[in-house]
Order: sequence, then C-alpha cells, then structure tokens
Amino acid sequence: MNYADRLAAAVRRCGNPALVGLDPHLDRLPAEFAEARDPAVPRARRAQRMGDFLEEVVGLVAGRVAAVKPQSAFFEVLGHHGVEQWERVVAAARAAGLLVVGDVKRSDIASTARAYARAFLEEEPRCDAITVNPLLGDDSIEPFLEACTARGAGLYVLVRTSNPGGAGIQHHGDPPLADVLARSVERWGMSRPELVGECGLSSVGAVVGATHRDELAHFRELLPHAPLLLPGYGAQGAGAEDVVPGFLRDAEGRPHGALVNASRSILFAPGDNWRAALSAALDEMIASLRSALDAGA
Amino acid sequence: MNYADRLAAAVRRCGNPALVGLDPHLDRLPAEFAEARDPAVPRARRAQRMGDFLEEVVGLVAGRVAAVKPQSAFFEVLGHHGVEQWERVVAAARAAGLLVVGDVKRSDIASTARAYARAFLEEEPRCDAITVNPLLGDDSIEPFLEACTARGAGLYVLVRTSNPGGAGIQHHGDPPLADVLARSVERWGMSRPELVGECGLSSVGAVVGATHRDELAHFRELLPHAPLLLPGYGAQGAGAEDVVPGFLRDAEGRPHGALVNASRSILFAPGDNWRAALSAALDEMIASLRSALDAGA
Repeated sequence: MNYADRLAAAVRRCGNPALVGLDPHLDRLPAEFAEARDPAVPRARRAQRMGDFLEEVVGLVAGRVAAVKPQSAFFEVLGHHGVEQWERVVAAARAAGLLVVGDVKRSDIASTARAYARAFLEEEPRCDAITVNPLLGDDSIEPFLEACTARGAGLYVLVRTSNPGGAGIQHHGDPPLADVLARSVERWGMSRPELVGECGLSSVGAVVGATHRDELAHFRELLPHAPLLLPGYGAQGAGAEDVVPGFLRDAEGRPHGALVNASRSILFAPGDNWRAALSAALDEMIASLRSALDAGA
Repeated sequence: MNYADRLAAAVRRCGNPALVGLDPHLDRLPAEFAEARDPAVPRARRAQRMGDFLEEVVGLVAGRVAAVKPQSAFFEVLGHHGVEQWERVVAAARAAGLLVVGDVKRSDIASTARAYARAFLEEEPRCDAITVNPLLGDDSIEPFLEACTARGAGLYVLVRTSNPGGAGIQHHGDPPLADVLARSVERWGMSRPELVGECGLSSVGAVVGATHRDELAHFRELLPHAPLLLPGYGAQGAGAEDVVPGFLRDAEGRPHGALVNASRSILFAPGDNWRAALSAALDEMIASLRSALDAGA
C-alpha cells in the first residue's frame, strides 16, 4: 500500500494528527540516562543508553499517535554507535505499529541521491518516509521518487521551514522560492499514479513550519494533494490554533492531510517522573489539537 | 591554524589543486572487493571491504593531492557498519597528511545543526571541512560557523551545483538565488576574523559546479574571499579548461583559491590493474589542470 493511504489509515486509527519527534538532545535526557552525555563513558555505551531512552519513548507513544520522527543529527553525533541506535529505534517503532518519518533532510546530485534513497527507504530497517532538501532541483529528487514508487514510501520536501532565518532564502524572488518549491512538490506527487492514494493525497508531502500561521493556508492551497508535516509546535512556539489552516477537510468536514510535530516539549516535558510527564504532555497536545480542529471546522 | 591557511599550504606543497572524491559506488569497486556488493555477505564484512579499498586509495593519493572528499551517502548505504568505515577512512586520510572535506550536505534548524556541526567538525575523527546546504538560511549556518571558528575548520556551502536540474531552483528570482547564496557565503566568511587566513581567503567556501563554465567567472567575482570547490570534472563532463575561471591569481600570477574535484573518473579509471589505472588517471588530471592553468595565466 502506498504511503498516503498508510498514513491516512494510521491517523484515522489514532484519531489525532500528532507526530512525536525523537530528538535525543544528549544534554536533556532524563537523569537515569545521564551516561549518554558523559564523555568519560565509552561511546558504544553512551549510544546504548540513548537508545534505551528512545525505546521506552516508543513504547509510551505507540497506539496513541500515528508516527514518530527520529532526527538523524542526534544519532550521528555519537558516530557509528549512534547510527546503530538509529537502526534499533526505527525497527522498534515499526514493530510497535508506528510509521517512521526519518528526519534526514538529505540532498545530492542524482547518482548520490540514489544511494541516500537506498540507505533510508530500501535497506532494512527502512523508514516509511523521509525528509529531503530540494535545493538541487528536479533530478536530485527523482531517485527518491523512484524508491517511493517501488517501496510504497513517502517524502516530505522542505518548502518553508520553521526557523526564523528560513525566510531569507525561502522568500527570495517573485513568486517566492517557497511557492516554486510547493508547486514542484505538487507536481512530483502527481507524476506517478502509484504515488497517489485512494485517500486522494499523494505520497510526496511538504514541510511547512507551523510557526508561520499566516502562510499555512496559502501553502495548503498550493498543495491540494500533498500531506503536510508541520513542525514548530511546542518548544518553537506554535500552538494548536496555528496549525488549523494546514488541514484539509473531508466530505464530512473532518480534518485530514497533515501531521503536527512536537519534539522537545513532549520528550523533555518537565516533571519528577519523566514517563508520566511525557504522557501527560502528549495527552495535552492531542486534546489541544482535537479541540482547535473541532473549533476550526 | 584556520582552514583557509591549512588549505593554501597543502595546495602549495602538492603543487596542484586536484581533490579526489571518495565515492565508493559499491557496483563499481574493483573485482577484488566484490564482497562489498554481495547481499549474501554480512554487512559488517561488506563495509570492511569497502573500507579496505578506500584505505588503499588514500595511500595512493597521499602526498600527491591536498585533499580527499568522502561522500557520506555511499557509506550510509551500509548502515552503521558503513559509518564505521567512514570514521576509519577519515582517520586514515588525516593520518596520511590529507585534508578531509566531508561531503555530507547537511542542513537543519539551528538546534539540530549544532548536533551536525559537532558530529562532523568536533567529534573525532573529525573532518577539516564539510559541505552544507543553505536552504534554511543564516541561523541554520551559524552553528557551523561557530564550530569552524573554535576548531579551525572550514565549510563549503552549496551555491550552484553541478547537476543539470540545479538551475530550476538556483536560477530562481532576479538576482538569481545562487547570487544571493554567493553573497551570503562571502558575508559569513568575513563575519569573524578567526575565519580569515593570512592567505587572504576565508574558511567559508562555496560549491560551484565546473559544469557551468560560463557562470564560474561570475561567481569568482561575487566571492573574492571564498575558497571554491569545483565538482563536475571528469565523469560529469567538465574539462581542465572549464575550471580556469574559478581560480584567483596571486601577485606573481599563480592560480589559487579553488579545489577541483573528480571522483568516479579517478576511482574507477578503466584498466586491468586498478591501482595503476587510478594513479595514471590522477597524473593525467594533475597534468591537465597545470597545463590549463598555465595557459590561462
């Protein structure tokens, strides 16, 4: 089954569009995993403890959200031992029934992009979807589209990022570059029938920061068939009301077509018991999203 | 010593501006390393054989060129075992006196870019410089500039890539996006005195495809203080004459300020004896570059 339909089914099953970002900032891990940030501890052990934390997180969120989004940088910082834990966490999340959106933001010329597509979408344990950076243009995205077509995988292409400095580049030109990127995403998603789901959406999505509320409706319009990934909720400042314009509505007025990402505000929610704090923060995020989406209907 | 001066010294020592790209396409490795592409062989062993090949390549090119450029994708395709070999190859190249330009093209928001900067420029074995993708703007580059300042490292920022499809995005707007990126690179490079070498260049360089000969002089003008990395020589079609406009000239008219990358045309040069073929292809590239640069003086 293609990614668009697997995503739609998973969101329907969970009844909410939250996605939990797995960004294991070593400095912020709960005290019981402090070994992970201790330079005196061998790297293999540090990485192991980071993986232990994330495996518990996966267990806590499985069944409650459709997907998790591991962030590659925080694994790579521990070298190949960290990448070994990436593989462990991807496998654990998939085994727990979660979709895995690998946040890798890779980009390269076609012959090299082919190797990245294989690394993340074809070799086991593989991701259900990954993020990619489109600065190198159409031919650099093609190998990823091929892998998605062959494996029922998905992409989220950077269109408008959540950080304050993104506008410097992404608003360049008239129309702004981000609009050009959005139109490319729409085109890539509709370029092969296998990528389009029965749900009506394609498997090629876009990253649009939830921190730019005034731009979200605009991108939703430019991207009628693209699933959106909306980062910026929580620690980066966006709230539940901000994400509402990123959603499509089905015939019954129910919201669909977007995932809302929170990472630090869930993973490192303050509290004496990190497990309880994480669960409570996730419950609160889910409730806030439901309420804002109901109000916005 | 900062990257700009270490680079200038290394190029002067070798007497040529060639850089060998370490792109171990598994399908193209010499027959004696065929295990690396055999899916029936355990991944750890496959990766080991890829690393064996590259360690030999490092030995063959050390002392003859200033730098090598390992391409991360071809390591990542073998998972954490591949990344373990990345570490081995980076360490071996540095031990052999080569500068290492890690071709990783990473990009992310600042808090995540910080982890990438640490992974590639701070944790051992670290690269002397890496390639980065600037689509996320100023604040996403800042953590890399900080790491370069603290560690005497360098960056090569994607400005105009060598692939045919790059123009679709990089020529967008008026002025074209690539010009905006070039001006940013110049500004980033001059933003901290520690980044600027006694050689007069900064440690923040730009990737400009040698396949766009007509644009090279233009970017050289926009980037008076940036070292250039010119990919596209050889397999991608650019020749020695094409790269001449990418160089600066010193007071004596000697060319400096650019590295010319060839990967596949050196690594997989045709011939019964791959070591001899590689050496001959590198000799030919060096001779062609010297001759074209002398003629262009």
